[in-house]
Amino acid sequence: MLKKLLLSTGLMSVMLPTAMAFAAEDATPAQLQGAVDAVWVMLAAILVIFMQAGFALLEAGSTRMKNAGHVAGKTILTFGICAIAFWAVGFGLAFGDGNSFIGMKGFFVDGTEEQAAAAYSSLAYSDVPIGIKFLFQLAFAGVSLAIAFGGFAERAKLSVYFIFSILFVIFIYPVAAHWIWGGGWLAGHGKQDFAGSTVVHLQGATAALVATLMLKPRIGKYNKDKTPNLIPGHNQVLSVLGVIILWIGWFGFNPGSTLSAMGDGFFGYIAMTTNLAAAAGGVAAIVIAWIYFGKADIPSMLNGVLAALVAITASCAFVSVRDAIIIGAVAGILTFFTAQWFEKAGIDDPIYAFSVHGIAGIWGTLANGIFAKPELVEKVGIGKPGLLYGGGLEQLGVQALGIFTTFVFVLIVSFIILYILKVTIGLRVTEEEEVVGLDLSEHGSYGYPEQMKKAAGGSSAVL
Amino acid sequence: MLKKLLLSTGLMSVMLPTAMAFAAEDATPAQLQGAVDAVWVMLAAILVIFMQAGFALLEAGSTRMKNAGHVAGKTILTFGICAIAFWAVGFGLAFGDGNSFIGMKGFFVDGTEEQAAAAYSSLAYSDVPIGIKFLFQLAFAGVSLAIAFGGFAERAKLSVYFIFSILFVIFIYPVAAHWIWGGGWLAGHGKQDFAGSTVVHLQGATAALVATLMLKPRIGKYNKDKTPNLIPGHNQVLSVLGVIILWIGWFGFNPGSTLSAMGDGFFGYIAMTTNLAAAAGGVAAIVIAWIYFGKADIPSMLNGVLAALVAITASCAFVSVRDAIIIGAVAGILTFFTAQWFEKAGIDDPIYAFSVHGIAGIWGTLANGIFAKPELVEKVGIGKPGLLYGGGLEQLGVQALGIFTTFVFVLIVSFIILYILKVTIGLRVTEEEEVVGLDLSEHGSYGYPEQMKKAAGGSSAVL
Amino acid sequence: MLKKLLLSTGLMSVMLPTAMAFAAEDATPAQLQGAVDAVWVMLAAILVIFMQAGFALLEAGSTRMKNAGHVAGKTILTFGICAIAFWAVGFGLAFGDGNSFIGMKGFFVDGTEEQAAAAYSSLAYSDVPIGIKFLFQLAFAGVSLAIAFGGFAERAKLSVYFIFSILFVIFIYPVAAHWIWGGGWLAGHGKQDFAGSTVVHLQGATAALVATLMLKPRIGKYNKDKTPNLIPGHNQVLSVLGVIILWIGWFGFNPGSTLSAMGDGFFGYIAMTTNLAAAAGGVAAIVIAWIYFGKADIPSMLNGVLAALVAITASCAFVSVRDAIIIGAVAGILTFFTAQWFEKAGIDDPIYAFSVHGIAGIWGTLANGIFAKPELVEKVGIGKPGLLYGGGLEQLGVQALGIFTTFVFVLIVSFIILYILKVTIGLRVTEEEEVVGLDLSEHGSYGYPEQMKKAAGGSSAVL
Repeated sequence: MLKKLLLSTGLMSVMLPTAMAFAAEDATPAQLQGAVDAVWVMLAAILVIFMQAGFALLEAGSTRMKNAGHVAGKTILTFGICAIAFWAVGFGLAFGDGNSFIGMKGFFVDGTEEQAAAAYSSLAYSDVPIGIKFLFQLAFAGVSLAIAFGGFAERAKLSVYFIFSILFVIFIYPVAAHWIWGGGWLAGHGKQDFAGSTVVHLQGATAALVATLMLKPRIGKYNKDKTPNLIPGHNQVLSVLGVIILWIGWFGFNPGSTLSAMGDGFFGYIAMTTNLAAAAGGVAAIVIAWIYFGKADIPSMLNGVLAALVAITASCAFVSVRDAIIIGAVAGILTFFTAQWFEKAGIDDPIYAFSVHGIAGIWGTLANGIFAKPELVEKVGIGKPGLLYGGGLEQLGVQALGIFTTFVFVLIVSFIILYILKVTIGLRVTEEEEVVGLDLSEHGSYGYPEQMKKAAGGSSAVL
Repeated sequence: MLKKLLLSTGLMSVMLPTAMAFAAEDATPAQLQGAVDAVWVMLAAILVIFMQAGFALLEAGSTRMKNAGHVAGKTILTFGICAIAFWAVGFGLAFGDGNSFIGMKGFFVDGTEEQAAAAYSSLAYSDVPIGIKFLFQLAFAGVSLAIAFGGFAERAKLSVYFIFSILFVIFIYPVAAHWIWGGGWLAGHGKQDFAGSTVVHLQGATAALVATLMLKPRIGKYNKDKTPNLIPGHNQVLSVLGVIILWIGWFGFNPGSTLSAMGDGFFGYIAMTTNLAAAAGGVAAIVIAWIYFGKADIPSMLNGVLAALVAITASCAFVSVRDAIIIGAVAGILTFFTAQWFEKAGIDDPIYAFSVHGIAGIWGTLANGIFAKPELVEKVGIGKPGLLYGGGLEQLGVQALGIFTTFVFVLIVSFIILYILKVTIGLRVTEEEEVVGLDLSEHGSYGYPEQMKKAAGGSSAVL
Repeated sequence: MLKKLLLSTGLMSVMLPTAMAFAAEDATPAQLQGAVDAVWVMLAAILVIFMQAGFALLEAGSTRMKNAGHVAGKTILTFGICAIAFWAVGFGLAFGDGNSFIGMKGFFVDGTEEQAAAAYSSLAYSDVPIGIKFLFQLAFAGVSLAIAFGGFAERAKLSVYFIFSILFVIFIYPVAAHWIWGGGWLAGHGKQDFAGSTVVHLQGATAALVATLMLKPRIGKYNKDKTPNLIPGHNQVLSVLGVIILWIGWFGFNPGSTLSAMGDGFFGYIAMTTNLAAAAGGVAAIVIAWIYFGKADIPSMLNGVLAALVAITASCAFVSVRDAIIIGAVAGILTFFTAQWFEKAGIDDPIYAFSVHGIAGIWGTLANGIFAKPELVEKVGIGKPGLLYGGGLEQLGVQALGIFTTFVFVLIVSFIILYILKVTIGLRVTEEEEVVGLDLSEHGSYGYPEQMKKAAGGSSAVL
């Protein structure tokens, strides 16, 4: 080939001749396959990490101006903490070899295939390099953590974010991840959760629920007669952008969970079911809102899109395109009504984390046990077909078992962690700090100093 | 390979042994090629779908605060409707086998290669899985629809968006798409439109023109003496971000239209012509604006970038790099002057959809017939070289025929659809609703409730 | 294969049979390798070009509302100018064959492999098509230029941006790029700079330093007693989004610098070191800010993330994962303290360009000479191991030599260019224009017209 010729003729004499020699070698078919798979899963990992921008914008847009810098900024902080903790401990606990309850190998991931071969046999079916496997799984843990923090919004202390990030990534997320994806006991039962309706979304949402209950509602959310007030988010354009980024990110989340570009285009099929479910969820939710409120409420539509994406996450690889549309539409509707219901029941979940990620996560996991088709179950190689396609109640039962045990586990551990934090450092900022906003009270400057029309910090601002 | 060894030794005994078995099989060369092509076109499809964020931001940034939530939010709604309608009907009409006017097979895309082989022979030259082909083409239809809605901005009813989305995706977009890309009569004439200056941009822009004429100008746009007032967009930063996202998205739009990563780097060449045209269009437009207005107008520059991208869309694979720069620069200048001219002529096209996507789409399609080089025509395999490279007027004539027939077709059908909507449900919100803004009137809450300084909805807002 | 069958049966009779024939041919292993590499580097190029959005948002968010449209808009303008100038001249100067000081072939890149083979032997080790190599390197030049303009913010004339863009891309950036990456004299010494801590970041930052010194501080930045005032950025949410986009973009920047997907997943390893360094830098910076200010300052955290990314850019392919975390954390802390120090020393660097890209660029380049591991040095094929891994002071000396010569070169040439501009057209807008803001004075309309509550331009605005 040309490059070899150039290397040999000395045209590259100034450049050291061995520079990046691997780029010039002829690759074997196995190396080619490895490279294609690596590029695909790297793209998927990037898309899922980009979802942090989606969460930052959705959450900032759905809350108030006085908290906007805090809400957006803490997303980067907590993803940073998550990355370090998952590298040191979480990844080994989730995917390391161990017992059916927890992994016990492969801490402090060093990025070598030697460590990978010795420690992470649950991921060995894919030939993607360990660095990318780590990033992909880190991205998932980061999403789960971002979901959890939805329940903390606009009132939790920054120090709580700091500490809970570490503990969630060590004591919560990796456990159910190991059960279902790390070769644990639920995997042994054939639990189907292709990309994490249970592992990622239900776990995060359950922690969010515990947090929002323990933190109690925001000041002004409820009147004395317990009727709720609307606390509108300050910027729907940011929320919309956040949701589009999340939608895009899901093309990494679901199709990337093949951990391979092989399978005769299987990841493309998964991308298609994912996209159509999202579309159906958004349209269904806005229609319901239009009927119910008399107005085509945009935040409800955004929640519908996300709920559909959450629901199809478990089943994207197992169901027909038509059934994906049904799953998405039902998720959009379910989330709309449960969000109303939780709000009326006195649960102030500022960005509807439990409705969007919990209820839809449960629905999606169950839907898998209803709609999974035999030929797709065979292709994925986990579990049995669903209720409607000859599988009877068996798979549905496994799915319910997975939901129940994950929910209870996260409920208990989140409660213990947050209870200890509550009685030690306290969970919530003071009333005065909450009124003034977390930007100023926790970070010393407004996110929007000119719009808040106040000098930031103690110095004289020049605007 | 290592993974096989692990599978065989039972190290993966807890994980079901067949899980994702396709990832561990040795791939054939054809499968490897399929996988590379699939990854490339999947990336391209993701980039083009991400363009919805670009349109949402550009359009929201270019309009007023009171409509911002509506403008951004309806982008998700209409893309969702588009996805369902294109899945059910539009894709089959456009790419399904049929006659030279319309496709008549392959409705309700099921994502199987069996349906693909039986229905979509116009796409059979590419080995990309049908799920990804569908997503890629859906993304194009979604862009065309988003362009069309530029002409509806700040005054059309939400219900009109709802219904027009469905009808555009069924009765308008697929028809010319079939003529040019689906094996229809213009393809038979060798019409060159590599990535859709005509199919995507001119179609959307023509519908936008019809809509903006039928909706009439926004309140306050024109004085009694018919001189126009400036209605500045509320947020240039969002517009800039939107344009960068669109620029990035075009790396999927144009190079992805190879539907393959093969061809010895041909998609890379296309990415290069696309990028340089965009650069030239932006620079040319701001220089012209600087000369003409005495100020380096930013919206004019943004339109110049987009116009250049629209123009190079047809010809990106057919022209030299130098000619791509010329095509882009001319597009930037043409769009600048035509935008001024339309505004003075009483046409209130709020985000200049027809100038940016229509005029530049026409120029780009014609430019193809002028600048197409023989060796690139041979590589693509469609049509003849252009006027300047020995092709005479023949290809230019075919290009003009394609523009004329597409323009007239979309003009007529858009008019019929919008006329029926006008006399039934009405196209435009009331004067009062328009003044108050569509956020509040159509959706019940402001997109920026704190900045609009009014309580959203009927409840007492807590800010 | 199916597609061939379809082509032969005449099912595609309407579509011209040769259309995109390359998509249907059986590829050789070398072509497959080329396609995989091309897809990977194309993805990387797209990510790095997307970093322009990151810079636009970070810089706009970190400055004032009255300048926001200008700050964001000029990013597109200068990238456009950069693209044309790099195509015409810069790429040939940097990567063209020539002598050890400068390239002298390959101007006006025509996108053919013939020109590439004849002109750019420093890039011949990679089989990626020349169009993508050009885009990837253009993206790097564009980042360096965007960094430089950080030092111009909120007071330089638009015409200065215009002219400096051209001159930077011709007389500054390509020179050191040729020395280190184009087969120049520093490459001959084994200078290690995997993805550009020196080439991209230090060069841009040095130009920013010269500019900010020559432009002098913004009005109101310093009091008569020389104590600095805080001029807070107007929108932290945009800054956060910008930083996440930059973080994402770095997955192209660093791992893409392999220019190949081969090497048994080496690019995945690089992505991992990059990500963990960024995480460590952000966490370290916010902790230091918390201790030092008593408040967890968000802009400091954002700078910490970027500083870590800048630092790991040189060494991402050479160091262990653990050392990457150390390099990132140290970068975050160094940048925090130097930013404070420069501000107190009277240097008004509005978005801390020299601290973030210069200090961290120097640290990262030196860190490479400290932490480079033998087996990774061998894999990359450039230079010697670092101080801590048996390499002694030799590599560290080469790294210091590269820093010193690049810094001095850019310092001198930037000064000459800006000095000539100063005495001819002048560098800075008038005091009145600066007070009113660059949106209105340079572009004729506010970026946020409704929020600035003034009519834009001379016409009566309708809001």
